[in-house]
Amino acid sequence: MESHGGNIYKIAAKLGYEPSEIIDFSANINPLGLHPEIKEIILRNMELLPHYPDPEYGDLRRAIGESHNIPYEFVIPGNGATETIFLYCRSRRPKRSLIVAPTFSEYERALRESGSEIVFHELKEERNFVPNFHEIMDRVDSSFDLVVLCNPNNPTGVLCHGEELLTLAKHGEKFGTDLMVDESFLEFREDCQEISLISSDVPSNIFILRSMTKIFAIPGLRVGYAISSNKKLMEKMTLLREPWTINILAAKVAQEMLDCRDYLEKTAQYLKDEIDFFIPKLRRLPWLKVYPPSVNYVLLKLLTPMTAAQLREKLLSKKILIRDASNFKFLDDKFLRIAIKDRSSNESLIKAMEEL
Amino acid sequence: MESHGGNIYKIAAKLGYEPSEIIDFSANINPLGLHPEIKEIILRNMELLPHYPDPEYGDLRRAIGESHNIPYEFVIPGNGATETIFLYCRSRRPKRSLIVAPTFSEYERALRESGSEIVFHELKEERNFVPNFHEIMDRVDSSFDLVVLCNPNNPTGVLCHGEELLTLAKHGEKFGTDLMVDESFLEFREDCQEISLISSDVPSNIFILRSMTKIFAIPGLRVGYAISSNKKLMEKMTLLREPWTINILAAKVAQEMLDCRDYLEKTAQYLKDEIDFFIPKLRRLPWLKVYPPSVNYVLLKLLTPMTAAQLREKLLSKKILIRDASNFKFLDDKFLRIAIKDRSSNESLIKAMEEL
Repeated sequence: MESHGGNIYKIAAKLGYEPSEIIDFSANINPLGLHPEIKEIILRNMELLPHYPDPEYGDLRRAIGESHNIPYEFVIPGNGATETIFLYCRSRRPKRSLIVAPTFSEYERALRESGSEIVFHELKEERNFVPNFHEIMDRVDSSFDLVVLCNPNNPTGVLCHGEELLTLAKHGEKFGTDLMVDESFLEFREDCQEISLISSDVPSNIFILRSMTKIFAIPGLRVGYAISSNKKLMEKMTLLREPWTINILAAKVAQEMLDCRDYLEKTAQYLKDEIDFFIPKLRRLPWLKVYPPSVNYVLLKLLTPMTAAQLREKLLSKKILIRDASNFKFLDDKFLRIAIKDRSSNESLIKAMEEL
Repeated sequence: MESHGGNIYKIAAKLGYEPSEIIDFSANINPLGLHPEIKEIILRNMELLPHYPDPEYGDLRRAIGESHNIPYEFVIPGNGATETIFLYCRSRRPKRSLIVAPTFSEYERALRESGSEIVFHELKEERNFVPNFHEIMDRVDSSFDLVVLCNPNNPTGVLCHGEELLTLAKHGEKFGTDLMVDESFLEFREDCQEISLISSDVPSNIFILRSMTKIFAIPGLRVGYAISSNKKLMEKMTLLREPWTINILAAKVAQEMLDCRDYLEKTAQYLKDEIDFFIPKLRRLPWLKVYPPSVNYVLLKLLTPMTAAQLREKLLSKKILIRDASNFKFLDDKFLRIAIKDRSSNESLIKAMEEL
């Protein structure tokens, strides 16, 4: 588990800090924090705790369907998007899968667990990790059941156009190859709806993931969902699904917050402004290569003899936690990832880095 | 999912009731309801929602370990006991399993999903579903990787002695056979600690399940755990575990409520008294066979031409929901299960049944 963002509890305990003393740049959570409405939703629904959640999560699925103008039947909710990754893999049982990497590590874990052979399509550093769709399509043939791609990609921040992904999916259709697209960070962008593959006529070989955990800053509650128009796959997933995995408070929060458009707009606007402020300041550090962010995190590369692990240690002594990104496939010990946080935290990081 | 207790939301919607109007005897939740402290714990920890849970759930595991006087390393927490059933099956991958049935259906689902052949050991109605351990032991040989038994058993209510289970586990040891014992309802009893297999020297082939959902009336939050001294199994389970499945509020509630002994004692005492009141009244109905309850639910059999499904419909018209138990393996359409609830609900059920 140490493979993900920092286990801030363990780190704090080890260093003798309180978890709240540490500025956590390792988890990519909405910098605006918890919407005040969320606490009220939890208070309002406390009386539901002695009841099992609706095992079909009907209201939640209907709300998600309405919010995207897609049928209820296209929606499968999960305990975070992660549950739906594992559930897809157990249900579809891909024999051979192509993962476009470096990327989030749970695709590989879920696929390995369900017995898939895994091939990586390496995104090249010299191209700033921008995927070449011609190359990916050249590799896809009937030996692959699945291609996995994260958009925007974690940790590189590279954003692909919806058109490119649809072309790839269409190409895959010829070979019976699915395309899994993880849109967990897409809602941090104003143009989310233009780029998203979610639509009422989404091809049946596309499986789309959405997280609500990150955009609504509720990793402590956990909720996400997946979208597919593949009826057989959805039936299999419903059959294999473990019961009641989404707690009733998370389900209610998700259902009521889905259409909180003003919060989404405010977040996207805030990020645009903060990127304009923060990124030039990072770029002024001569020992750092800054990859262009598209959402709420930035990939960085150290241009000094120092490793990301060493930088992480140094910053930890200043109670700042960053993500050493060296354990992402195809990234070496010079790479790190940081979240874009509130102005004062971002300034603290800049200051700490300048002092190094 | 309809295979479990009632989906009260769906049923209420279908009949045009509010879910709160229905008296739900289909879910086996603590009749004392939510402990007031639980709301306070949630309020106190709301600020943690923007943080990922500790992926190792260190504090929770330590609290569970201390509460049972067992090492931290024996404890694996889950999103309900159910998560640990599925995780065990994926980690241990039993080739052939013996399920003592009728019983809770998720053992079978989890085992099938992980590819186990399943053999049922049928508990006989003419013996009131009391297991004969000699017969079970006679069947166990090296062809079985696992025996599954629920204690007390759901839905029969039959309680086994710890000694019998330890003898069975010792017998299994010779053949490399594990014993999974589900103690999800055991804490409803005063003598829980005497009967439980949880101890610091639990044999390594025993896997024990505990739910906190039922005893603390929090099926809307969901938390449970499993206990094993098998180091290799625990490592495999840790490796295969999906991250952050227990939300931070559930983890905090579980951690703080674990040692709420007065609530457990009050519950056990209440149930004893309520069984004394309720069961004789049920027994007075000449068309009903009442199996002796050991915890907070009762198995019933109709001695009339009416089926459990028909009785369920009739009671639903009086806004009372019972569990048609005919879909439990080896039970026919005459069986039903009801929870033991608060006095006034129990009286309503008696009255409704007398009127039939």
